[in-house]
Amino acid sequence: MNQMIQTPEWIKDAILYQIFPDRFASSERVTKPSNLEAWDAPPTVFGFKGGDLLGVVEHLDYLADLGITGIYFNPIFQSASNHRYHTHDYYQVDPLLGGNAALRELLDAAHARNIHIILDGVFNHASRGFFQFNHILECGAQSPYLDWFTIKGFPLNAYGDGKNLNYEAWWDLPALPNLNTDNPQVREFIFDVAEHWVRFGIDGWRLDVPFEIDDDAFWQEFRQRVKAINPEAYIVGEIWKPSQRWLQGDQFDAVMNYIQTRAAIAFFGAESLAPLDPGGGYSLLEPLDAVAFAQAIEDMLALYDWEINLAQMNLLGSHDTPRFLTMVEEDTSALKLAMLFQMTMPGAPTVYYGDEIGMTGGHDPGPRGGMIWDQAQWDMDLWHYIQATIQLRKAHPALRRGTYRTLLAAGKQVAFARTNDDEALLVAFNTDTAEATLAIPAENGAGTPQVLFGETLTVSLHDGVLTVKLPPRTGVVLLIAP
Amino acid sequence: MNQMIQTPEWIKDAILYQIFPDRFASSERVTKPSNLEAWDAPPTVFGFKGGDLLGVVEHLDYLADLGITGIYFNPIFQSASNHRYHTHDYYQVDPLLGGNAALRELLDAAHARNIHIILDGVFNHASRGFFQFNHILECGAQSPYLDWFTIKGFPLNAYGDGKNLNYEAWWDLPALPNLNTDNPQVREFIFDVAEHWVRFGIDGWRLDVPFEIDDDAFWQEFRQRVKAINPEAYIVGEIWKPSQRWLQGDQFDAVMNYIQTRAAIAFFGAESLAPLDPGGGYSLLEPLDAVAFAQAIEDMLALYDWEINLAQMNLLGSHDTPRFLTMVEEDTSALKLAMLFQMTMPGAPTVYYGDEIGMTGGHDPGPRGGMIWDQAQWDMDLWHYIQATIQLRKAHPALRRGTYRTLLAAGKQVAFARTNDDEALLVAFNTDTAEATLAIPAENGAGTPQVLFGETLTVSLHDGVLTVKLPPRTGVVLLIAP
Repeated sequence: MNQMIQTPEWIKDAILYQIFPDRFASSERVTKPSNLEAWDAPPTVFGFKGGDLLGVVEHLDYLADLGITGIYFNPIFQSASNHRYHTHDYYQVDPLLGGNAALRELLDAAHARNIHIILDGVFNHASRGFFQFNHILECGAQSPYLDWFTIKGFPLNAYGDGKNLNYEAWWDLPALPNLNTDNPQVREFIFDVAEHWVRFGIDGWRLDVPFEIDDDAFWQEFRQRVKAINPEAYIVGEIWKPSQRWLQGDQFDAVMNYIQTRAAIAFFGAESLAPLDPGGGYSLLEPLDAVAFAQAIEDMLALYDWEINLAQMNLLGSHDTPRFLTMVEEDTSALKLAMLFQMTMPGAPTVYYGDEIGMTGGHDPGPRGGMIWDQAQWDMDLWHYIQATIQLRKAHPALRRGTYRTLLAAGKQVAFARTNDDEALLVAFNTDTAEATLAIPAENGAGTPQVLFGETLTVSLHDGVLTVKLPPRTGVVLLIAP
Repeated sequence: MNQMIQTPEWIKDAILYQIFPDRFASSERVTKPSNLEAWDAPPTVFGFKGGDLLGVVEHLDYLADLGITGIYFNPIFQSASNHRYHTHDYYQVDPLLGGNAALRELLDAAHARNIHIILDGVFNHASRGFFQFNHILECGAQSPYLDWFTIKGFPLNAYGDGKNLNYEAWWDLPALPNLNTDNPQVREFIFDVAEHWVRFGIDGWRLDVPFEIDDDAFWQEFRQRVKAINPEAYIVGEIWKPSQRWLQGDQFDAVMNYIQTRAAIAFFGAESLAPLDPGGGYSLLEPLDAVAFAQAIEDMLALYDWEINLAQMNLLGSHDTPRFLTMVEEDTSALKLAMLFQMTMPGAPTVYYGDEIGMTGGHDPGPRGGMIWDQAQWDMDLWHYIQATIQLRKAHPALRRGTYRTLLAAGKQVAFARTNDDEALLVAFNTDTAEATLAIPAENGAGTPQVLFGETLTVSLHDGVLTVKLPPRTGVVLLIAP
């Protein structure tokens, strides 16, 4: 291990939950304006449902019951969009979410339950309403803020037909003017925002499209300044592709591990893969067999220092992808397998809100529906299954910090070991729709293993080979040593 | 006196100074962006010079030396315009001014010198960048904030050619969307802003175009909520015309007394009146003779309860008018006479920044030049004259709270008495370019009066008639009793 690389201890043990703030829960304590969409109506591109941070506070017991120890929030700062990636003011929590006071209450209540809070940092671009950009819109060439953006002409055609855009914007979207991070004052502004909220008490930053700020020195200083305030603050970049550049220990602690997401959908969902391009850095998914899947995981783990792998933000989908269940044509067994998989892998597993009760949704805005709170509509079996996988992960440090070794990959079966000084665990999956018998090399095996999780039809150990017979589309975790 | 009417005690004794924040003083402690206008270049409609609140802090000794006990600031909240009447965020002091921390320092430093701070409350309209308006611009009919404004169609044509405006705006200016104060949430928002800054420590609100919120109940609640926090907070409306409606004791304490301004320019500047329409509620000024002037003043004082007259915000010009000196073709004697006049009248006299050193400037943006800090360019005689009139007012409570009675008005001479239980003062003006002898009825006279201020060629008392011979274009204040 590279002694230079250090990631937060807590993230290695964390069970994360991703919340899209407008859609998780609405509190009666936050006054709302009048024109809101019905909570249970299909989500729309521009509509608001009125979720807020006090609603989250009021459901922390729910999350604690599920086993969650950290929440990643999509943006919460003042923004004129329901996803809030169009930041209007980086120092204000959106009034619809309850404002800064609601974040204060949330942080205090979450920390009292040992739940960490990660916020979404959207620093590449601001919005047309952002003060310094609005300043140029209003004052033209005489605004003192010209060099906060990259302006090519006046007046700015920000609200025109979108043609002949005369300033730099993310994907040439007029709504998203790029901040000019070559300007030292802009850099200082962003670093101050980052510091401010860490001082306020947040536990980490998820960085939106950080590769767009193509500047190692920028992210190095970002890390130094954030870690100077809280060395345990977590910095995770939204990068969908191999990310060695950013994961040398001097920039991010982790990335959103969509590489693992992609492999998990393609393998565990191979039987029922929907013809959906998941978007982002994904392309259209093709089914993976066990050999290709195991290789993909090995390749992924080889990309980074082990300290990074232990801190990765693993996930099965997000606000940017169709929901996992929708990706697999609503085959719940695929979701269960994938959930067990991420709970037994190094890196922090993440539950996208509502996945645990069986919510579905296609492309944006599909996966951003209002959280269903009517338990009659829940898939209770799924919920309990996920809760159990979380309890399993929490009970066994080897699943969180142990070494990883592939033991078997053949056809539709995979097995790997997670081992630390105290115990060796074997994780095995049968993704076939028929039962399967796995013959797994088990040199450390000492007697018949104990089943920690899942159902095995038979388990036996002979001559260093562990034979495990698994029902169709199930996974199992065995304690093989001591 | 109507026992119901109560105005703040401190304002009756105050000497006010109006500051246009971008133009008074710039501190090196406030980091500025790059594209600022030269401080001494003529002011422009859209340019910024970079004055700030710490610059004011650093010149409080200057103001204290002049005799100032209160400052009225043009708007200081975050706004994409150099005058800051286009509010972007009512809870943030503009970053160019040093942000909220600078206001904290200013309030503390000013209060330590017994200087009160009055802020400009711009509540009729917001701006295109104001969050709730920007929200509708970005989200259209699905914004929850539709009823914060009066919207007539989508998409908002806020940045188009200005034709077919599809929302209500002040004077149909697209940049200034009217807040819908019929919406209880908007009312609550405005009242909360008003309360917030009074709690923060400001001493009063000057209300921009308050007649546009044509709703007595609104301003009654505004007053109740502000006074509940600080009963001595001052509420002064920008109303250029007779304002009895708002000055019954249940809405404002005072208005900006442009009625007096207009009379003062027309009388003291009669010899040199520039052919300028001063703007606002003024029309083109015609010279006034002494009789008409005295009548105008009597009529003005009769409009309101005496408690109101003692609290009026008197002024000789503002950011909204050409500077006094420019109105009178730079005849400094007119400014001196008018300054002595307002220092001897009931109501708080106001010095518009820079008038005291002889700054000039025509219509907007003319009167908004950068304050001249090079004393070599000052009219030192004018400065000392104004300082002396302030000292005079401070030394004689009768000038601040005494009764007012016109004693003489003829040709180009006027005299009036200001009397309280302890003393009777006589104020006399000769606006002629030749010396003049005034024969003033002086029933209270007891021996030859003492000259408190100004120069008299002779003073004598015979048979209840005080004879005062004044040099050309001068005023005098005499102690006639006891």
